[in-house]
Amino acid sequence: MSSSDSVPFPIYLDNAASTPMLDEVMTEMLPYLKEHYGNPSSLHRFGRMTMRAIEKARTRVSSLIGCNRSEVIFTSGGTEANNLAIKGVADLVRKTNPEKKHIITSTMEHESILEAFRDLEGKGFEVEYLPVTKEAQIETTDLERILNDRTALVSIMFSNNEVGTIQRISELARVTHQKGGLFHTDAVQAVGKIRIDVKQLGVDLLSMSSHKINGPKGVGALYKREALKIAAIIHGGGQESTLRSGTENVHGIVGFGKACEIAAQRMGEYETKVSALRNHLIDRVLHEVPNSRLNCSTQNRIANIAHFTLFGVNGEDLIIKLDELGIAASTGSACSSRNQTSSHVLKAMGFSYAESTGSLRLSIGIMNTKVEIDQAVSILSKAVEELRKLSPFD
Amino acid sequence: MSSSDSVPFPIYLDNAASTPMLDEVMTEMLPYLKEHYGNPSSLHRFGRMTMRAIEKARTRVSSLIGCNRSEVIFTSGGTEANNLAIKGVADLVRKTNPEKKHIITSTMEHESILEAFRDLEGKGFEVEYLPVTKEAQIETTDLERILNDRTALVSIMFSNNEVGTIQRISELARVTHQKGGLFHTDAVQAVGKIRIDVKQLGVDLLSMSSHKINGPKGVGALYKREALKIAAIIHGGGQESTLRSGTENVHGIVGFGKACEIAAQRMGEYETKVSALRNHLIDRVLHEVPNSRLNCSTQNRIANIAHFTLFGVNGEDLIIKLDELGIAASTGSACSSRNQTSSHVLKAMGFSYAESTGSLRLSIGIMNTKVEIDQAVSILSKAVEELRKLSPFD
Repeated sequence: MSSSDSVPFPIYLDNAASTPMLDEVMTEMLPYLKEHYGNPSSLHRFGRMTMRAIEKARTRVSSLIGCNRSEVIFTSGGTEANNLAIKGVADLVRKTNPEKKHIITSTMEHESILEAFRDLEGKGFEVEYLPVTKEAQIETTDLERILNDRTALVSIMFSNNEVGTIQRISELARVTHQKGGLFHTDAVQAVGKIRIDVKQLGVDLLSMSSHKINGPKGVGALYKREALKIAAIIHGGGQESTLRSGTENVHGIVGFGKACEIAAQRMGEYETKVSALRNHLIDRVLHEVPNSRLNCSTQNRIANIAHFTLFGVNGEDLIIKLDELGIAASTGSACSSRNQTSSHVLKAMGFSYAESTGSLRLSIGIMNTKVEIDQAVSILSKAVEELRKLSPFD
Repeated sequence: MSSSDSVPFPIYLDNAASTPMLDEVMTEMLPYLKEHYGNPSSLHRFGRMTMRAIEKARTRVSSLIGCNRSEVIFTSGGTEANNLAIKGVADLVRKTNPEKKHIITSTMEHESILEAFRDLEGKGFEVEYLPVTKEAQIETTDLERILNDRTALVSIMFSNNEVGTIQRISELARVTHQKGGLFHTDAVQAVGKIRIDVKQLGVDLLSMSSHKINGPKGVGALYKREALKIAAIIHGGGQESTLRSGTENVHGIVGFGKACEIAAQRMGEYETKVSALRNHLIDRVLHEVPNSRLNCSTQNRIANIAHFTLFGVNGEDLIIKLDELGIAASTGSACSSRNQTSSHVLKAMGFSYAESTGSLRLSIGIMNTKVEIDQAVSILSKAVEELRKLSPFD
C-alpha cells in the first residue's frame, strides 16, 4: 500500500465505474447472507424463503423499467446480460433463420458488446459498425441505410459510459423493427438515472447492472420481451426460465431489487441533485482550469457524467496524481484502464491524439456533496497546474 | 408463508444443495460490501483495494486445490465454471482442430454438464455418454473403449451430488490423456470436503462452487491448467485473463477465498466429524426405519451425503412432510426438484421405479450436531410411518 492510501478524505468521483452500496440495500441483503441460506430450488422452507425473495426482487426490477415480472432474467451483471442478449439472439437465429447473418452495433459501445460481436464475426456473422458524430451521437439515417432484411439484431447503448451521451433509442428501435430486426440496448449506465419504460421505448432486450445504481456487484439483469425467444449461454438446472442456469445469487438479487426500488423512488431527486452537482462541477472546471474543454455538451446526456479534455496533460498521469491527492477519477472506462489503450470511444468520435490524451471523466453519485465537488475542483486545478509545469503545455 | 414455517427447530440436512455461511466468511466480506466499493479495474486507491482483495482470494482458492494462482478463473458459480470448461474447450477446438468432434461425459452428471453437452450436440459435436454401475461407478475400461484420437474432451464428475460416490478421477484423466483428449471434472461436491491436488489428479480443468462450502452464493471458479488455451463464453472488458469478463463480484470472491482457506484448515476435522455424523445417521435410519435401504454404500464416497430408498413412500411427499416437521431434506438434486422429474442419476444407475420413488438424500454440514441427527431420525421414522399408513406398503 502506498502512503497515498492514508489520505483521510478520498473523494469518490468514479460512480460510472462502480457505486457505494446504500445502507438500505445492505440491510435488505443481510438476512440472505446469514439465516436464509436455502437453495431457491429446494422444496423445503429454506428454499421457499429464498425463492420468495428472488421473486420480490424481480417485481422491483420490473417496476423500475416498466415490464412484466416474467420479462426479467437475472444474470451475474451487465456484461453477462449483454452477452446473453447478443449471443442468445444469434444462437437461435443461426438455427431458425440462418440467412439472417447481419448484425449491427456502433463503434462506441462498451467492450462487452464489441467483444461479443467480434466473437460472432468469427462464427460467420456479418457485423457492421455504425459511426458516431464528434458529439457521440448515432444518426438514425445511418442505421436506416445499412439495415436490410437479413439484419437479425441491432445493439446500441442507451447512454455512453465514457462521455454520457444518450441515443434516440426508441427511434433506432422503430426503424430496426421496420426492417424486421430485433433491437437491444445496453442500458447499464442509464437505468436508475433516467426514467425508462421498455414498452414505450419499444426495445426487445435491455441490459442492466446492479453495482452502477448503488446495489451489490455480481448481479444484473436482462429485460427480454415476453414473446421473444432467445437461446441460453449458460446451461444447466433451468433457473431463470431456463435462460440462466445456476444456483441464484440470492443476496445479490435481493440487493439489486432494493437498489431498483430506491432508484425508482428517488429518480426525480437523483436527476435534480446529480445534474445540479454535475453542472456546478462543469462551470467551475471550465472557469478555473485553463485550457480545459467539456466534451459532448449536448442536451442528450445522462446526469452523472462530465467528460473533459485537459489539453497538455496526460490523462493517466492526472488520475494517478488525483489519487495521491485524494480524488478517485478515471480517464474513461474502468474496464479498459488497466490495459492502457487509448479510448475507442474517443477514437470513434474522431478525437485527435491531443484531445484524447488529456481525458478526464468525473462521474457523480447520489452520495456526493457540493463540498466534495468544490474541494475536488480546487485539487484538480492544482494537479493540472503541477503536471503542466513538469511537462510544459505546447 | 405456511404455518409450518413457524416450527422453531428446523434441522438443515440439505447441505449438498447449499450451505450456511460461516461467520468468519461474513466478517471478511463485510468491508467489501461497505467501504471498499471500487471497481477492481480502476487505477485509483478504491480500485487497487478491491483488486488486492481478489488476488488474496485467488491465492486462497489455489492453495485449497494445489494449483498456481494464475490457474484460477473466478466465475459466477459452479454451473458457469462447468459451462466455461466444456464450451471453452469446444469453441477453441472447433477453430483449431475441427476434426476433434468427439466429446464424452457420463449419464449421471449434473444438469449443467449434461445440458452443456446437449448444446454442443446441437452444434455438430458427437457426444457419448458413459454408463454407470448400480453403485454409481464409472468403469475405466468403458472409457478406454470409446476414447479415440478424435476425442476432444472427457468430463466426469468428482463426486455425485445425489448419491455421493467418488470416481477414480486420476485414472480416468490418465487414459484420456493417453488418447490425446482433455479431462475436466465437476468437483463442486468434492472441493473442500476431500483433499484435492489438481497436479496429482492430473486433470486439465476442475470446477468449484463457493456456496457448497459455507461461502456465499453467486461465485465459483474454474481451475485451468496454465498451458491450456480455452475460449471465453462471456466476452468484454477482459477480466480474469480475458476468460471471464465483467466487473468482479468482489465481496463474493472475498467470501469464497475465505471459505476455501477455512476448508483447507479444517479438512481433517470435516472428514472426521461429518463422516461420523453421517455414519451415525445411516446406522440409526437402517435400524429404526423399516424397509429402508442405503444406496451406494461403497467406500468411494464423499463424507456428507447419505442416500436412502424408503420403500413404499413417495419421496416428494416425504420431503414435504419432513419440512412440516422441521427437517430440510431432498429427494436428490435441488436443481431438478422443482420440475419434479425423476432422478436421471438413479435412472442411470438402473434403479427401478420402486427404488427411485422412495428417494431421500440427507446431506450433512460442518454446522450439524449429533443432537440434530438424533432428532432428525426420530422425526423421519415417524414421518415414514405416517405416510405408509396413508398409502399402505405393498
